[in-house]
Amino acid sequence: MDHLFEKTTKSTEIYKGKIIDLHLEEVELPNGKTSTREIVTHPGAVAVVPITKEGKIVLVRQYRKALKKVIVEIPAGKLDENEEPEKAAKRELEEETGYLAKELKFLASFYTSPGFADEIIYLYAADKLEKGYANTDEDEFLDVLEVTIEEAEVMVKEELIHDAKTMYAIQYLKLTK
Amino acid sequence: MDHLFEKTTKSTEIYKGKIIDLHLEEVELPNGKTSTREIVTHPGAVAVVPITKEGKIVLVRQYRKALKKVIVEIPAGKLDENEEPEKAAKRELEEETGYLAKELKFLASFYTSPGFADEIIYLYAADKLEKGYANTDEDEFLDVLEVTIEEAEVMVKEELIHDAKTMYAIQYLKLTK
Repeated sequence: MDHLFEKTTKSTEIYKGKIIDLHLEEVELPNGKTSTREIVTHPGAVAVVPITKEGKIVLVRQYRKALKKVIVEIPAGKLDENEEPEKAAKRELEEETGYLAKELKFLASFYTSPGFADEIIYLYAADKLEKGYANTDEDEFLDVLEVTIEEAEVMVKEELIHDAKTMYAIQYLKLTK
Repeated sequence: MDHLFEKTTKSTEIYKGKIIDLHLEEVELPNGKTSTREIVTHPGAVAVVPITKEGKIVLVRQYRKALKKVIVEIPAGKLDENEEPEKAAKRELEEETGYLAKELKFLASFYTSPGFADEIIYLYAADKLEKGYANTDEDEFLDVLEVTIEEAEVMVKEELIHDAKTMYAIQYLKLTK
């Protein structure tokens, strides 16, 4: 057992929701003392870095209630139950942008907020995009944009792009171009 | 008003915690229909990319209850009430690693999980580190590591480093070295 391990001695369900659940866990710390941890569980998510035949990045502009503002992000969405991440990535890309990707390249996965949540994002790249049909979820409203890397970097400076996965994706494109 | 704006018609507090709060918000969508949003509020956080005089990155190895495992991250922590991010970054760096940074360079800020949380991370770089005294929070246990960029990249491949802020930080170091 790792010397940093924290043993759960009690777990209380606070909330069971549509997207997230919340538990309060009592833990035994490595020094034998006790503490509590607030744990958000999430089904996991996928995100795609979609590059058009013209070399532009496809982004979505979306109102984020948690932030009380509109930001611009790479297409992303949560995993459906038992859904393979790659399948989810193709689905979200088409639903949100109308673009079809025959092949996706897996880039990386990462936890977004390990201090309080188990959300993991599986990130893919897609090029050779074909036009399909956008069909967003019934409670999802967004604008689709196509920008150059340089334009995306300006959006980062202006904090229109302001989330970790999208900023990671833009760094990835800079490292590989 | 942006055409993607969602108006809150009701907000219910589900949980008020030590680190996060949870609200359930009823919203009016752009098409006039209604939906609900689960919103986690967080005080915000800071993270530091600390580089030693020998050019190594200082990382912390920590058990993350939400992930049920140990991962390796750049030093980070949440903001205290009304605390300036830069001050918090210096504080967390010293508390977690024992290193003092006279000057920090602001690199970027980003939201970690805009779909359900307002957590923002302010990211700084620190070099010319001096030895101070580590002094972690009473419920915080961690190991301090010093690694090269190449060693950090291996840790990413092996998913020992597996969170967005740390993977963003390593990309940043590759882009600027």
